[in-house]
Amino acid sequence: MHTPPLYRQLADHYLDAIRSGTLKTGERFPSIRLMMEKHAVSLSTAVQVCRELEDCGVLEARPRSGNYIRQPDDLPKPGALPPPAPVDTDVYVGIHEKVSWVLRASQRATIKVNFASAYCAPELYPLKTLQDHMIKALRQNQHLLGAQGPNCGHSALRNILARRALTAKANLPAERIVITNGATEALNLALRAVTRPGDTVAVESPTFYGLLQILESLNLRVLEIPATAHAGINLLALEQLLQGAERIQALIVTPNLQNPLGSIMPDANKSRLVQLCAQHTTVLIEDDTYGDLVDTEQPLSTLKHWDRTDNVIYCASLNKTLAPGMRLGWISAGKWHERVEMLKHTQSRGCEALSQLAVSAFMKTPSYERYLRRLRKILTQQRQQMSAGIARYFPPGTCVTTPQGGTLLWVELPRHHSSLALFHEGLKAGIQISPGDIFSNTRRFDHFVRIGCGAPYSPKIDEALATLGQLLKNQG
Amino acid sequence: MHTPPLYRQLADHYLDAIRSGTLKTGERFPSIRLMMEKHAVSLSTAVQVCRELEDCGVLEARPRSGNYIRQPDDLPKPGALPPPAPVDTDVYVGIHEKVSWVLRASQRATIKVNFASAYCAPELYPLKTLQDHMIKALRQNQHLLGAQGPNCGHSALRNILARRALTAKANLPAERIVITNGATEALNLALRAVTRPGDTVAVESPTFYGLLQILESLNLRVLEIPATAHAGINLLALEQLLQGAERIQALIVTPNLQNPLGSIMPDANKSRLVQLCAQHTTVLIEDDTYGDLVDTEQPLSTLKHWDRTDNVIYCASLNKTLAPGMRLGWISAGKWHERVEMLKHTQSRGCEALSQLAVSAFMKTPSYERYLRRLRKILTQQRQQMSAGIARYFPPGTCVTTPQGGTLLWVELPRHHSSLALFHEGLKAGIQISPGDIFSNTRRFDHFVRIGCGAPYSPKIDEALATLGQLLKNQG
Ligand SMILES: Cc1ncc(COP(=O)(O)O)c(C=O)c1O
Ligand SMILES: Cc1ncc(COP(=O)(O)O)c(C=O)c1O
Repeated sequence: MHTPPLYRQLADHYLDAIRSGTLKTGERFPSIRLMMEKHAVSLSTAVQVCRELEDCGVLEARPRSGNYIRQPDDLPKPGALPPPAPVDTDVYVGIHEKVSWVLRASQRATIKVNFASAYCAPELYPLKTLQDHMIKALRQNQHLLGAQGPNCGHSALRNILARRALTAKANLPAERIVITNGATEALNLALRAVTRPGDTVAVESPTFYGLLQILESLNLRVLEIPATAHAGINLLALEQLLQGAERIQALIVTPNLQNPLGSIMPDANKSRLVQLCAQHTTVLIEDDTYGDLVDTEQPLSTLKHWDRTDNVIYCASLNKTLAPGMRLGWISAGKWHERVEMLKHTQSRGCEALSQLAVSAFMKTPSYERYLRRLRKILTQQRQQMSAGIARYFPPGTCVTTPQGGTLLWVELPRHHSSLALFHEGLKAGIQISPGDIFSNTRRFDHFVRIGCGAPYSPKIDEALATLGQLLKNQG
Repeated sequence: MHTPPLYRQLADHYLDAIRSGTLKTGERFPSIRLMMEKHAVSLSTAVQVCRELEDCGVLEARPRSGNYIRQPDDLPKPGALPPPAPVDTDVYVGIHEKVSWVLRASQRATIKVNFASAYCAPELYPLKTLQDHMIKALRQNQHLLGAQGPNCGHSALRNILARRALTAKANLPAERIVITNGATEALNLALRAVTRPGDTVAVESPTFYGLLQILESLNLRVLEIPATAHAGINLLALEQLLQGAERIQALIVTPNLQNPLGSIMPDANKSRLVQLCAQHTTVLIEDDTYGDLVDTEQPLSTLKHWDRTDNVIYCASLNKTLAPGMRLGWISAGKWHERVEMLKHTQSRGCEALSQLAVSAFMKTPSYERYLRRLRKILTQQRQQMSAGIARYFPPGTCVTTPQGGTLLWVELPRHHSSLALFHEGLKAGIQISPGDIFSNTRRFDHFVRIGCGAPYSPKIDEALATLGQLLKNQG
């Protein structure tokens, strides 16, 4: 094999870096001395590298100042960059192409109003307080950044989560809680703990699209069970399927404020659901991401509360309720605890401890409950205003849910409308929605749209709703 | 189905919490008023709950102060707790039982001297500086905790990593870097992106035991290829296997400071390895976790540097070199970038941004390079002292590697010794080692031990080495 001379190899190396933008126009190029040192080359080689690059037109020598990167004439000028290439779904085989495609298209667009988010606006979170707790935790724990934290998470946070679970009538002992990178990681771990590739897992229909991605990426078969905004999962349909020929290894349910339906299961249904799953040895995975946003005085019961056989795996998150930037979630995996603990170690090791300390310091104070109460009130108002706006601008025949909490509205359009088309047209106008079509592997929900109400209602939001209404009218 | 009365349900609920330790002896029990509010029950129900618990002997009424948890006589007293149950490998099926068992046994023991860690002692990391950068980043970014960061990570860190890669002669454009929860998550993502369950993946033998866990948990078949402390993976053996009947979908190699061998591949081998893999369309996954700890003036080349066809996936980490508590790693996945980006979203979403901002602020300064230089010097000394200690106390015929950097020594004992037995006996004496047996799926390395040199040599360490020497002598 012919090897090019060293100076040519190095020149190519830097050319690549300039082409890819790692070294940018106008930036200073490494000095001859630095190059000699870094690449262990002679003076003459380093000089030769610069000459090569000058010859290519990418380097400009400025007297007494050094070499600078310039834009060669045959590279596109900044500002004249071509539009982003169309999203290529081939690269997402096995990660749910439909959902991946929608997420990617959103990332590439310039968004002015985002109705696709399930988060609250940043200013609704207690950022200043959390920041103070962070700084305090840092100062009090000098070695925090210098050692890996425990696999299961910091005991301060595990204790407070166990304590708070009691008021939702679930007994999650601190030693059986594992802190995760959000509910997303918790759900991944739950599924990896109890299924093997090829197994069948049942979900509510419609369901959170991220779950469909997780299931496909783990090579699991998905069975969709109808659910309603009124009472959540249809237990009769579930019972029939459980009695059917196909073994259902696990079932994932969000009993309180389901995404996107906003449904809350009555206690009788929760109890019956837990019993049914135990009876059929189908593992029940509970996703309680939104539980703390339920707008009632008393916390509602979890599925875990009704669990007598340790057959329920409980997953939850602080990302919607307290601090999206911290990525904290947790899992209490019942009889699969040891397995989940080791899978967590194998997948990503114990979570970073600082934010765990900061949130537990805050959650220990009465301010936390006060903060949640206030947040729920604000969200209730925002949902009402958004709902009124939708009624004002969307076509006649539109139906909107009235969930008892949370940030999400599920909007049914007259049947001939397409949410995927609306998604497209919205992006062009700088408005992002979640098209109903991605909440199922069927095409049943293409005339639905999920609208996030996490931000205070404003003229800008009102205008964006009007634009969506107009786009729908144009759909005929 | 007969449902017990409400007060009985609540009493059971609290009994469970006391049994599991969520409510602890001596703690105050929730007041009648709080119970009424939290559980939406009447005064008489709440009172009834307390009576039930008093009757069971777990509640003690103290006049004018409230109810307190007491230890009922039939529960074991604290301090009289039974020894931890033996580790049950059944729960680890599919997560490499042998490795899981060793990790779990270590966690349950009380460790006084830990030779099993690959980290440096906390005080060797620039903790004060990082802490200052954290606080600054927090103050400068008011909304940081209130919104989820970008999927691929913060651009500040991606830019600095791209820039630093240049000096190791690899071109990793910032837009093709994804920040991960350590190299552990990076390796998981790399494998999930390019393999399907059942595929065969080749690794060096011996190799990092965490990798064996990852491979098994992803249902991948492992093929071990001999490697030496002198030059790393044996290319002749690899070539033969690549030409064999079994398709090798991916190969994972640590070219610089392999764990546990400490080997460094010569440039000619690196180049040849990349070429071989490209030729056989075997994806080459590079694990560069220890690259920055190589004790040479110039950074050594990465495999990615020799990659002309975008067939190398580069994984690395700051956890050994800068801040174990932050859990920051990264991946640059060549032509699988989009796929890895979406898998990362599906597995855990974008990483928490604060630590990314803090480390990039530090890594931009010349202090970072100075810090690394100093760390390498200290580690070189610690390795030498540890090596001398081993020579002093271990049986004649013991061989120790002399790696050109890093924190690890790989110790070969005379053949009749068993590292698993030494591991056991060591734990009993409060000393933790990594038994060679877990670095392979074969039994080839049971007479090896990996010894971490991350902590300053001390009389305590010296004594622990002497104890290990004695335990080995007892093995006969
Ligand atoms: C039902 C549900 N589960 C899980 C998640 C993911 O939660 P996290 O951000 O904590 O990973 C979401 C977020 O959108 C969700 O709606
Ligand atoms: C070779 C190798 N790769 C990966 C890892 C895991 O790295 P991280 O702590 O960044 O997840 C380790 C840590 O022990 C290692 O030795």
